[in-house]
Amino acid sequence: MSETAAAPQAIDLLISARWIVPVVPENIVLEHHAVAVDDGRIIAVLPLAEAEARFQPKQKKALGRHVLLPGLINMHGHAAMTLFRGLADDLPLMTWLNDHIWPAERRFVDENFVADGTLLAIAEMIRGGTTTFSDMYFFPEVTAEVAHSHRIRSQICFPVLDFPTSWGSGPEEYLRKGLNLYDRYRNSEWINVGFGPHAPYTLSDGPMRQIVSLAEEIDATIQIHLHETAFEVQEAINNTGLRPTQRLAELGMLTPRTQCVHMTQIDDHDVRLLVESGATVVHCPESNLKLASGFCPTEKLRAAGVNLTLGTDGAASNNDLDLLGEMRTAALLAKAVSGNAAALNAHQTLAMTTINAARALGRDNDLGSLETGKLADIIAIDLSDDLCQPVYDPVSHLVYSVNSRQVSHNWIGGELHLENGELLRIDLHSLRERVADWATRIRAEDR
Amino acid sequence: MSETAAAPQAIDLLISARWIVPVVPENIVLEHHAVAVDDGRIIAVLPLAEAEARFQPKQKKALGRHVLLPGLINMHGHAAMTLFRGLADDLPLMTWLNDHIWPAERRFVDENFVADGTLLAIAEMIRGGTTTFSDMYFFPEVTAEVAHSHRIRSQICFPVLDFPTSWGSGPEEYLRKGLNLYDRYRNSEWINVGFGPHAPYTLSDGPMRQIVSLAEEIDATIQIHLHETAFEVQEAINNTGLRPTQRLAELGMLTPRTQCVHMTQIDDHDVRLLVESGATVVHCPESNLKLASGFCPTEKLRAAGVNLTLGTDGAASNNDLDLLGEMRTAALLAKAVSGNAAALNAHQTLAMTTINAARALGRDNDLGSLETGKLADIIAIDLSDDLCQPVYDPVSHLVYSVNSRQVSHNWIGGELHLENGELLRIDLHSLRERVADWATRIRAEDR
Repeated sequence: MSETAAAPQAIDLLISARWIVPVVPENIVLEHHAVAVDDGRIIAVLPLAEAEARFQPKQKKALGRHVLLPGLINMHGHAAMTLFRGLADDLPLMTWLNDHIWPAERRFVDENFVADGTLLAIAEMIRGGTTTFSDMYFFPEVTAEVAHSHRIRSQICFPVLDFPTSWGSGPEEYLRKGLNLYDRYRNSEWINVGFGPHAPYTLSDGPMRQIVSLAEEIDATIQIHLHETAFEVQEAINNTGLRPTQRLAELGMLTPRTQCVHMTQIDDHDVRLLVESGATVVHCPESNLKLASGFCPTEKLRAAGVNLTLGTDGAASNNDLDLLGEMRTAALLAKAVSGNAAALNAHQTLAMTTINAARALGRDNDLGSLETGKLADIIAIDLSDDLCQPVYDPVSHLVYSVNSRQVSHNWIGGELHLENGELLRIDLHSLRERVADWATRIRAEDR
Repeated sequence: MSETAAAPQAIDLLISARWIVPVVPENIVLEHHAVAVDDGRIIAVLPLAEAEARFQPKQKKALGRHVLLPGLINMHGHAAMTLFRGLADDLPLMTWLNDHIWPAERRFVDENFVADGTLLAIAEMIRGGTTTFSDMYFFPEVTAEVAHSHRIRSQICFPVLDFPTSWGSGPEEYLRKGLNLYDRYRNSEWINVGFGPHAPYTLSDGPMRQIVSLAEEIDATIQIHLHETAFEVQEAINNTGLRPTQRLAELGMLTPRTQCVHMTQIDDHDVRLLVESGATVVHCPESNLKLASGFCPTEKLRAAGVNLTLGTDGAASNNDLDLLGEMRTAALLAKAVSGNAAALNAHQTLAMTTINAARALGRDNDLGSLETGKLADIIAIDLSDDLCQPVYDPVSHLVYSVNSRQVSHNWIGGELHLENGELLRIDLHSLRERVADWATRIRAEDR
């Protein structure tokens, strides 16, 4: 009997690209390779010639001028607040909050506001290469529903505060509603529901402890604003005798499931608590700069072994949801803050928005790299633009030179959401009208 | 006799726009106005209805979703180095220079390199809304020629150093060649030739004094790298007993015609010297961050009355020539550095790239604002993009939200260079091939 070649395997999709940056293994760039996708997952990453012999794809996408990489993960934001983008800038923090953002929230934030604002954010994020986002805002069940129906992945951290808001009367109701939301999506591949204790200064020890124990019981993530400003840290010391990080550590809240957002104003003891606990830091450099919050010492944290991730924060304090731009800001800022031009290099910065974020979500088996077995969340960026030549190193290019408008394709679970820069699954025309309507009403009330 | 309306005046061009930000007068936004252009100059800025009654334009451009503003002025760069974009990143400053940039310069920089690199830079700058750029590099006569033939305005600061380079043997030859260049363009509306004493640590007192006296005699500008790093300042104190700013002041080099580039590491005495002399500061935030040089205290300088401008620096240390992005970085960074979220607001940031820059060039009669009598250097930015809605304040939007790809039109002296994002006067196809060829050769030599 003679040997015959195995028949090619039928698969859904084969994407080939000039460069592939798989993120894991780290620090490599593959040239003239392909990613094979079937049933929403990556089944191989291999040289193109080999891929063509081995697979019979229903669909082929040849991206000869592009770099392919894992979809980006935006680890902190308030999607609905996109409707407040640029409403009030260049103001001291308390004026911004007291005179603009909080009155506008009281007046306008309801289910419809959250639905429209979230969809606008999702459109911008998919356009910019994001495939998973984390959110913390009122009416999280609406955010979850909009994200779910538009097939983008998300971590929805429902807010818990001591005081009443439009979404609930206090900790008991927030937790009850949040746990219902958790139950609704507990087996979802698309939505992870986590706890969102708003901040140390808005939540007392009792509900903090409840969250610690509930999150452990159901193995859920916790996201909290922490050490955002010097004022916060000083007030905490005045009121509790403890720095906020120390207080959370004593409450048992710092674990590998915990995501600490901002983390400016941190000292060596804070760093040690982060390292020992395995908690993640979510760095939001543009928001920290714009609100004059201070500098997160990212290079120091990275060198100490802290899991570092990146978030845009809400568009009201950024003023965009451009994660490529945020990577650039993070990489540039880390160098000046640490006094070391070699700090936070391009590969490390890309890890923050991919594999490190997947780890923070407890989903590094599924997300964060282009590896066999992972979900097919994949983006392509066109590096052929004449005005960003030459390209010596595609990863350096991604972080320091690329304009987010060069993101050309975005697949989530193997489904194409963006093709040659055009959104395929969002009706921008009807969204535009609703956004214009909100803007007219919000502008009329803002003084 | 009955009165008759005056016949409409024939003009070259009438541009109307949804918003016009003239920059002077400051802090205003005009709605539904138009700019009338004739013979390369602005002859009126007025309400659209009035413009239509008063003028009979040969050409009309109605930009109903756009903001119109003065062309941006990039006050510091090394255009030819665009061919080294991303050649070597994430390295300590001296490794970057010694092992990559300087060897590549020695090997490749000649007239052809400067011509092709400069044209690539000009294409990127025009696409991003720049209408005037300042340059300091070897073979400045080539940079001037390429800029002149492509009808973009420039300030060409010819380099002067103590030591020989590919362009000359020492101060005497640099000055001789530079003064020839000055003579060639002395009456040009397009090219201003200025002195480029490279830095305090590369030029001794003798040629510094010569430059001071020559520049005064011919009323030319001087641009110098100053206080770029802490190392520079400390070495200067060790070697001369003086901080670099103090040394320049004693040499008579600080005048209203002097542009000090970088200015990190400055103390109160340095600020006083800048204020007293009327010298300009050219802030290059992204380069300062990327090379870990430190922070220029822009808000402090602004509040003290120093004329503040903005530059991208070369693409080798940025890695783009996107002045809108640089404005955003400057505005964000100023807040965190000063600890004040109200620092360097959007209007003040826009002034840095327009009227303040025009003042630094000694050309505020011609450039830097949309005012009657000024040269018609005008850009339009399309604010209708669905993914950066809503627009509450177009100036805040320009600084904090706009993507440089939204720059749609660019007129220099009334001539259209960019239309709906397409470059009209540069042959990108042939440029692309030459750039690819340089990149191949440079990559082969870089280790």
